[in-house]
Amino acid sequence: MTGHLAVIGLGPGDAALLTPQAATALERASDVFGYGPYLARVPQRAGQLHHASDNREEVERARAALALAERGARVAIVSGGDAGVFGMAAAVFEAIEQGDPAWRALPVTVIPGVSALLAAAARVGAPLGHDFCAISLSDNLKAWETVTRRLDAAASAGFVIALYNPASRARPWQLGAAFEVLRRRLPGATPVVFATAVTRPDERIEITTLDAADPAGADMRTLVLVGTATTRRIERPGAAPFLYTPRSEA
Amino acid sequence: MTGHLAVIGLGPGDAALLTPQAATALERASDVFGYGPYLARVPQRAGQLHHASDNREEVERARAALALAERGARVAIVSGGDAGVFGMAAAVFEAIEQGDPAWRALPVTVIPGVSALLAAAARVGAPLGHDFCAISLSDNLKAWETVTRRLDAAASAGFVIALYNPASRARPWQLGAAFEVLRRRLPGATPVVFATAVTRPDERIEITTLDAADPAGADMRTLVLVGTATTRRIERPGAAPFLYTPRSEA
Repeated sequence: MTGHLAVIGLGPGDAALLTPQAATALERASDVFGYGPYLARVPQRAGQLHHASDNREEVERARAALALAERGARVAIVSGGDAGVFGMAAAVFEAIEQGDPAWRALPVTVIPGVSALLAAAARVGAPLGHDFCAISLSDNLKAWETVTRRLDAAASAGFVIALYNPASRARPWQLGAAFEVLRRRLPGATPVVFATAVTRPDERIEITTLDAADPAGADMRTLVLVGTATTRRIERPGAAPFLYTPRSEA
Repeated sequence: MTGHLAVIGLGPGDAALLTPQAATALERASDVFGYGPYLARVPQRAGQLHHASDNREEVERARAALALAERGARVAIVSGGDAGVFGMAAAVFEAIEQGDPAWRALPVTVIPGVSALLAAAARVGAPLGHDFCAISLSDNLKAWETVTRRLDAAASAGFVIALYNPASRARPWQLGAAFEVLRRRLPGATPVVFATAVTRPDERIEITTLDAADPAGADMRTLVLVGTATTRRIERPGAAPFLYTPRSEA
């Protein structure tokens, strides 16, 4: 029997947003690898092994998964959201390129998922209504200057901006610094959304403005959306407002 | 009974990538609105009405759906991929803001889907490995100068770029012009992917370079991905290469 590796996006959290393709691949797997909290979302069927690891060990985790697939196992490796968006997929291909040449012949498939970006946007309306970008505020793998250059370019050019990895205990100041960069380019009234633990039981959605945005509202589970000068806020009686970015910029 | 409107992303095409949340909402709807080819993907249960319309009539379609929900119907309106990414969601909120004030009180929910961007990326590896953006090449709703400014800003700042709406019969020259803008900023060897009808029976994936990219390879059903100077191509024996963009830019 030939082993294989499926790199699977679990979606934002709610099991109703896990695709049937992902559910089937998980069901068939003999071994599932992932960061503990994501792995905890995967129902463990009889005989299936779960290999939980820590957050920062992506490439090591990818290598272990590939080595097991090479020995004939049906392996899955999971990410929250979509595995291709700041998830495990890039780490897997990095491990393949740098690892055992036999790994290149393995059947490796990536099963897409509903990314946090899409789930967070859906919760407040249609803030991604036109061109948009996604930027990770983590400076573990790139220079902070690269982050600020991209923030400045994106705000200047009129992209809606999704900020991944806005804050953690080890990176407490980056989001505040990012807001400072954006305030130089965007009106203070630009809508900002803090979407934390989207679609999970402890979901928290805060809609504010760039002027009022408080970095303390974000943690490791938060995605921050920053609109453009054209993003609209629709007030509603007795309910949270809708946000949307008009498609037309004419 | 109170009516409601669900704005639903159907995913890229394969039914195994339609989320259970979307499937349930479709099953419960009394009326489903959408562009014909998307609506054709929705199984029509007994008693359910399907309202197909043409491609360019988004806001009219949104108004008709809202008016029916206001009269008490359980209405769904569908998009391919994710409804918030160049789909119906922004048109719905535009119609709400400009329409009958009673529409603001309607329960309107957006159900996210697997966008074409994520599905196309998954097919070739992990090309979105770091910061990325999505730009529509349609100049129906914005000036072409806005498009070129964003292309230039994105390529200069090192974003992976996904091009939506690269070509249609009415817009035959935009993709070629976009490649010209990108060639001034990116190496000719930068990987480019033409992903057409992703996950559907007539799927076609072409991996090429910015130098060699031929705009004639794109049609209305194509998503074009343009890597960065760091995007890697992993050759494989007897199989298409993998593409990935390394997470580390240090």
